[in-house]
Amino acid sequence: MRKLQVALDILDLNEALEIAKLVYSGGADILEAGTPLIKSEGVNAIKELRNHFPITEILADLKIMDTGKLESEMAYEAGADMVVVEGWASDNTIKEVKETAQNYDKKWMVATTGTEMGTDRIKSIINLQPDYVLRHVGIDDQNYKNITDILTKDELELYEGNNVGLAMAGGITLENIYRLHEPLNYISNVVYVVGNDITNSKNPEERTRLIKKKIQEL
Amino acid sequence: MRKLQVALDILDLNEALEIAKLVYSGGADILEAGTPLIKSEGVNAIKELRNHFPITEILADLKIMDTGKLESEMAYEAGADMVVVEGWASDNTIKEVKETAQNYDKKWMVATTGTEMGTDRIKSIINLQPDYVLRHVGIDDQNYKNITDILTKDELELYEGNNVGLAMAGGITLENIYRLHEPLNYISNVVYVVGNDITNSKNPEERTRLIKKKIQEL
Repeated sequence: MRKLQVALDILDLNEALEIAKLVYSGGADILEAGTPLIKSEGVNAIKELRNHFPITEILADLKIMDTGKLESEMAYEAGADMVVVEGWASDNTIKEVKETAQNYDKKWMVATTGTEMGTDRIKSIINLQPDYVLRHVGIDDQNYKNITDILTKDELELYEGNNVGLAMAGGITLENIYRLHEPLNYISNVVYVVGNDITNSKNPEERTRLIKKKIQEL
Repeated sequence: MRKLQVALDILDLNEALEIAKLVYSGGADILEAGTPLIKSEGVNAIKELRNHFPITEILADLKIMDTGKLESEMAYEAGADMVVVEGWASDNTIKEVKETAQNYDKKWMVATTGTEMGTDRIKSIINLQPDYVLRHVGIDDQNYKNITDILTKDELELYEGNNVGLAMAGGITLENIYRLHEPLNYISNVVYVVGNDITNSKNPEERTRLIKKKIQEL
């Protein structure tokens, strides 16, 4: 399964909802309530997305670093289908998110944001069996590196033969996404996360449609 | 300088404001808009704290992992005097927070939440000259370790002779705070962060007063 997730890293809720409508029409599979949106508007951002899109998959990028149960519960109660915990959080926090996801029968994702993460840590995260590992080059690092450059064959082999999906985020565009076809050789469950390239484009709906088409061709 | 910071890790804003009034009366030096409060209520939580406490120091625990400029600007604009970026964030993110703090003439703190952080990383964080390093045992880890056990003499010596203050959080109570007097031998600028022990007590105002008194005696 190949999905397109659109990250709404926008501070204003109304603006986020307007763009959400466009990318939904363009074929986005997952709508992401981005971290800045949640910190700006609170859990209400998740609730409003849920109200406007009763069926579409909604991910809450809470970037959880602590209080794993409290924060993931808050997001699931607000209508999120999936939450994000940070790979640099402690194992206790990650396990709390896992347990809460299981209690709610919802999904959870572990992100590799921040300080470069070695293969050992990624391996131990995969062993916790999240629905997805999010390989993430943060926005602040995208001038220096791109997600299309960091996925080595050695790392991709870690995902082979288990049920952990791979999500990828960090400067993905319509033009460079072709460079991310290799994971499909190893992993059946792949999510491509696109933010700025869609949300800052002149026509987010059309841009979403073009990227979705490209994903299906990969 | 020894300060008492009270962490308002409460989901409901009105409840947080009620407790804030009590701990303010009890002598809290810094009011902390906790991460769960901000994720629940959004940046409005910071604005409302500022409205109710025009002069008291307010810290926004945003636990920034990415988009350092965007998130710290949002907090400073809302009235925060200090923001928290995570030590596991990338150096680019940490530097963005530093620059934004300098532009606003505000303070910033780097937290050591999550996966055990080695002395090398802490040293490189101190070299970035934040106002404070927050040595943090997250709430999810407090059943397994306590802030009173993790500060080694070797680590404390890192702070000696520079202008970086030390904040400490993670299960500090009226009963165990005496065990945290040693940092005062090395560091002139110390913040004690207390959460549950005050906010869950029957009398938060009195509890704050007792802990504040203890800090002054350390």
